[in-house]
Amino acid sequence: MVAPQQFTDFIDQNADRFIQRLGEAIAIPSISGDASRRGDVFKMADWLEGQLNKYGVKTEKIPLGKQQIEGQTLDLPPAILGRIGDDPKKKTILLYGHFDVQPADKSDGWDHEPFQMHYDKASGKIFGRGSTDDKGPILGWLNVLDAHHTLKLDLPVNLRFCFEGMEESGSEGLDELIASEAAKKEQGWFAGVDAVCISDNYWLNTRTPCLTYGLRGIAYYQLNISGPGADLHSGIYGGSVFEPMTALITLMGKLVTQDGRILIPGVYDGIQAADANELKKYEDLDYSIDDLESAAGGKIANSAERSTVLMGRMRNPSLSLHGIEGAYSGAGAKTVIPASVNGKFSLRLVPPQTPEDITKKVIAYVESEFAKLNTRLNMKIEYLHGGKPWVADPSHWNFEAAKKATEAVYLQTPNYTREGGSIPVTLTFADNLGVNIMLLPMGRADDGAHSTNEKLDASNFIKGSKLLGTYLYEVGEITKS
Amino acid sequence: MVAPQQFTDFIDQNADRFIQRLGEAIAIPSISGDASRRGDVFKMADWLEGQLNKYGVKTEKIPLGKQQIEGQTLDLPPAILGRIGDDPKKKTILLYGHFDVQPADKSDGWDHEPFQMHYDKASGKIFGRGSTDDKGPILGWLNVLDAHHTLKLDLPVNLRFCFEGMEESGSEGLDELIASEAAKKEQGWFAGVDAVCISDNYWLNTRTPCLTYGLRGIAYYQLNISGPGADLHSGIYGGSVFEPMTALITLMGKLVTQDGRILIPGVYDGIQAADANELKKYEDLDYSIDDLESAAGGKIANSAERSTVLMGRMRNPSLSLHGIEGAYSGAGAKTVIPASVNGKFSLRLVPPQTPEDITKKVIAYVESEFAKLNTRLNMKIEYLHGGKPWVADPSHWNFEAAKKATEAVYLQTPNYTREGGSIPVTLTFADNLGVNIMLLPMGRADDGAHSTNEKLDASNFIKGSKLLGTYLYEVGEITKS
Repeated sequence: MVAPQQFTDFIDQNADRFIQRLGEAIAIPSISGDASRRGDVFKMADWLEGQLNKYGVKTEKIPLGKQQIEGQTLDLPPAILGRIGDDPKKKTILLYGHFDVQPADKSDGWDHEPFQMHYDKASGKIFGRGSTDDKGPILGWLNVLDAHHTLKLDLPVNLRFCFEGMEESGSEGLDELIASEAAKKEQGWFAGVDAVCISDNYWLNTRTPCLTYGLRGIAYYQLNISGPGADLHSGIYGGSVFEPMTALITLMGKLVTQDGRILIPGVYDGIQAADANELKKYEDLDYSIDDLESAAGGKIANSAERSTVLMGRMRNPSLSLHGIEGAYSGAGAKTVIPASVNGKFSLRLVPPQTPEDITKKVIAYVESEFAKLNTRLNMKIEYLHGGKPWVADPSHWNFEAAKKATEAVYLQTPNYTREGGSIPVTLTFADNLGVNIMLLPMGRADDGAHSTNEKLDASNFIKGSKLLGTYLYEVGEITKS
Repeated sequence: MVAPQQFTDFIDQNADRFIQRLGEAIAIPSISGDASRRGDVFKMADWLEGQLNKYGVKTEKIPLGKQQIEGQTLDLPPAILGRIGDDPKKKTILLYGHFDVQPADKSDGWDHEPFQMHYDKASGKIFGRGSTDDKGPILGWLNVLDAHHTLKLDLPVNLRFCFEGMEESGSEGLDELIASEAAKKEQGWFAGVDAVCISDNYWLNTRTPCLTYGLRGIAYYQLNISGPGADLHSGIYGGSVFEPMTALITLMGKLVTQDGRILIPGVYDGIQAADANELKKYEDLDYSIDDLESAAGGKIANSAERSTVLMGRMRNPSLSLHGIEGAYSGAGAKTVIPASVNGKFSLRLVPPQTPEDITKKVIAYVESEFAKLNTRLNMKIEYLHGGKPWVADPSHWNFEAAKKATEAVYLQTPNYTREGGSIPVTLTFADNLGVNIMLLPMGRADDGAHSTNEKLDASNFIKGSKLLGTYLYEVGEITKS
């Protein structure tokens, strides 16, 4: 291991104190989506800035403007930008994390108070809102800084920090900040950044660390069909009028096959088939169809081929039908002909798909299929929101360093994953900084990030802290000129 | 006109008093669906029984048992059974109506207090909850009784009455009462009934009186597709699992064509094509595609052929897709793969279709189509509720009498209509009494029975009262031996 023994020993020796510090962070209910907790998000920013400063990180709290929430105008929580180390011979790594959390209340079904850490030593689980998302990972970095500061060890790389307090509420203001700092070039906080490391996702399972090198994009659509002036009674009008639901259901039925093949012409244009190198990544993954079905809670994998299922999840586009607004959605029976119905569906995108290009194809297809129905109803298709897909080069030194660190700390080869969901800040860094970005998760697939009884395994917290530090040493080692 | 001039003059001369009496009835908020108004439904029963007794009708209030509503156990409002006349040489006509009303509150959008009659003399409209549904028609019968009692005229037929106070809340207890009275034969209240007349529907338009001789039945289904243990995130699972919404939308898309042809095999078995006599009824109807589209609030008729549209509404079966329970139904965008979704659809039935037979065909078809999808999801199809269709012989003397009465009072030939919706008590009378039943509406298509600003035109109330009385005279005349 290239990381000094002193460092890893320090992490082990201070494990209890680190867990107590995580408890301090959990105790600040920094819920960004709840106006009444906004003060706590600010308090959390102060707490975090204090910790960073204690270990020699220079910081600035950047105000991000104001926000309308629940009828009030509130100040947005600041982003914390920070720097430590300016050695031109060392690589500079930018670390991202967020110090706000999802809402939580014991009455939602928590076994313990969500904002009081409950450390169950028997199972080794640290329960509490934010334990894994994303206070644990942020505190992992604090543990690394703490060790180096206390042991008076030089860090093997220069570090830059970008911590935000609005991630769970749309990261308001952050894109603008990143763009403006990037535009400042050598005068900005991100000057000289060689690579980015983001710890805000999860292992694919509960046993194998992973490195994530891709995220799918998304394009979300609303398909409206209307006709009657108001909802009609199916007894009175059924059989004499064109019904919006009949047209909408027919159109929604023309979008995707049962096994997930998207029927929109041109949607697969330009998507490369996986080459042998990429296929091997899926073959090497420690993840089975059983794992997927156990996480999904049902025997519903859409193929018996493991790599087909995994590639369906990670590297191929998909289309899901989410629901219908304006139709009857209650329990029981209502004999309504809904007047205006909005079908909701979205595609997950992979390179080179973009929301702009896919939107053109979706609109052309839906318009042509609607015309074939030959009704006298009205159709409107709207693009609601979206984001581009992202894929990084997993053979970059940034990933090589994390792979070696994983092997050193966990004695396991990491899973190389692409995720189906989106982490928008990844795209923002990619677009503005143009450097390699890696997602390096700390927690496990079963942590329950946005759920009740959110937890982080103590072993993930402690080994994860070693992993983060070791990764920095591996970066230093690999990139030594 | 066979009705004596004295009678029709009396109705005209007492029009203001009759309208005031309708105001008295409207002022009793007899909302059967609101537990806090149950006392008012009883009060309304007392008021109505008092009126009937005043004109020589012998009555009995029949208790119908108890009901669970809003967590309370309440007495059901009584049905009022009544009789006047026992001349074996006269026909005996059973009249049905209901004295309960739909909920109403000014804040719903009423221009005036719903439970204070607002008679707008300029437009001739009588506004108030219950004005047309169904207090106006009931009071029409009171006006007829009042005239004969005051003028000391013999009624041309024997009358029997069945007035209920739970029509707007499922007619709880009424089916049992009708069945038990019918079973008593000569000892029951319905002994000797030759025909039934129900005034509880509406003209097809705003200008032509109508006689209704058919109602469609209904069979309502819930189609469940499930698979995952809980809702899944489309980013994480989209593309790797079979999705319940994809299967449900596909199946719902196989039920009916855009122009209303039902795709379930065997569903049209036994339905007779309209013969020349029936076709002529549709040709003679004073109802245009414009009327339909204006009522529906959109240019959405499913054919340019008037008789096709009318028969689609009145005499052919139809299938409507009502909505989906368990999918995303809110505004905006949610990236969910719903775990378990219930598609709701129903068929409107015509003779000889029955819910039992149609249910077998629906289940067989959906099961076979689901198997073809070849997913690993679960499917369950459930029949939620239904009712048989009903058609009466419109050439029966009961209808002939009403036709002549309409021509005498309105100087118009009535529309002969079949309705797409259901009035379950019609089926109950048909099944238990085995006599001809006629629906003889008093109000117009635009009365807004269950809506805000419910109204009855004063001319419909006054001419309608003459029509009801004249109909009885025509029955007497036609059936004179």
